[in-house]
Amino acid sequence: MKGIELIPVEGFPEVRPGDDLDALIAEAVGGTLRPSDVLVVTHKVMSKAEGRLVDLRTVEPSALAKGYATRWGKDPRQIEVVLRESRRVVRMDRGVVISETHHGFVCANAGVDASNVPGEDTVCLLPVDPDGSAARLRGALAGRLGVEVPVVVSDSFGRAWRFGITDIAIGVSGMDPLADYRGQNDPHGYPMEASVLAVADEIAAAAELVMGKTDAVPLAIVRGYAYEGGSGTGKDLLMPPERDMFR
Amino acid sequence: MKGIELIPVEGFPEVRPGDDLDALIAEAVGGTLRPSDVLVVTHKVMSKAEGRLVDLRTVEPSALAKGYATRWGKDPRQIEVVLRESRRVVRMDRGVVISETHHGFVCANAGVDASNVPGEDTVCLLPVDPDGSAARLRGALAGRLGVEVPVVVSDSFGRAWRFGITDIAIGVSGMDPLADYRGQNDPHGYPMEASVLAVADEIAAAAELVMGKTDAVPLAIVRGYAYEGGSGTGKDLLMPPERDMFR
Repeated sequence: MKGIELIPVEGFPEVRPGDDLDALIAEAVGGTLRPSDVLVVTHKVMSKAEGRLVDLRTVEPSALAKGYATRWGKDPRQIEVVLRESRRVVRMDRGVVISETHHGFVCANAGVDASNVPGEDTVCLLPVDPDGSAARLRGALAGRLGVEVPVVVSDSFGRAWRFGITDIAIGVSGMDPLADYRGQNDPHGYPMEASVLAVADEIAAAAELVMGKTDAVPLAIVRGYAYEGGSGTGKDLLMPPERDMFR
Repeated sequence: MKGIELIPVEGFPEVRPGDDLDALIAEAVGGTLRPSDVLVVTHKVMSKAEGRLVDLRTVEPSALAKGYATRWGKDPRQIEVVLRESRRVVRMDRGVVISETHHGFVCANAGVDASNVPGEDTVCLLPVDPDGSAARLRGALAGRLGVEVPVVVSDSFGRAWRFGITDIAIGVSGMDPLADYRGQNDPHGYPMEASVLAVADEIAAAAELVMGKTDAVPLAIVRGYAYEGGSGTGKDLLMPPERDMFR
């Protein structure tokens, strides 16, 4: 097996609502991107280009949002946005809301984030359809550069039982996000157990290592990973409710 | 920021209890390892060298193990081993035991694994002290090769709410497993939120991409990651009980 390179794409401009993100990304990766690379994009540039920003001055918090925010010293308007982005609350405690978003992601504060967003009263939401955003970008890059690569849209999620956040894949296009070893034998000839690997999540985590939180590097190229193609999406990385032991 | 290389270390021999793992690893990475690399080692070679294998023919299952195994078509001896490796059961359902190990990891089947182990009646346990194993190897490599690098011991864990397993760090020595951006400002001048990154987990996940499940590549070198040194360990990646919303 050959090695893998993780290549940060630097010098990317600040993205504003309505910007032509496909053009900006094509320009940024044009000299570098090769067939068989995987392109990882943090969701925030997609959210911004897609106008998924909320001016909190326009938000009227509900009684629930007001009460919870007051109790924990939070901004009631931000709690209100989190509740609106949720279809099910899993835990509400210590000022945090762990919920299932309309996409099906279970995460803190429904992915609503006030970091790396211009304006004190602005928060950033997840893209409406991260898989769709990934597919659109993949097609646009194929058209503009003649290079078709899988696209992974990443975000930083917390984890139950473990401290610290890691980047995961919230949108995937052009590769199978899972590597399924079930039914294969290990080197000793015994069947592999519990061996479906969430490789798109591992790719997102790997890419984060060259992005950094404060460095404004929203793009990374993963070169040398022998992905499986296919029509899989980020939805394949959601635990099916009937197998979920932690609903 | 420069890129990162993920380098698989191939041709590693099958490890048996009592093998001199330090010598085997020093020989395998000797020509390649450089200062400022990070070495990732799957726990399984450490567990094997440390004799953390259990012959199920020697295990007398408890009534709980027998009843649960019968109900779900599992091996009662293996369930018994899982319960012995646990200090607290979090969920028991669908033939799986989610428990907290004696180390404090919350994972499926207490890390007990029958894959990649020789012998049909043999299972492999986690190392008794993965941080200690990492520190010992780090010291041994410094002594044998004159190169001191952080060591990350990895295992594949499932996640609540997400499908598929990813590699995480169960033992760490020589680097801070967390990158803490709290108190720093984002490029817009606003304070970063929720920004403690579990970089050792991301390093383990990245390394898995060049290891593969069936390829018998238990070692990978991560080159070019600007880690922070320090005395942190894998224990820093456990959610403190008082902050754990999912006990």
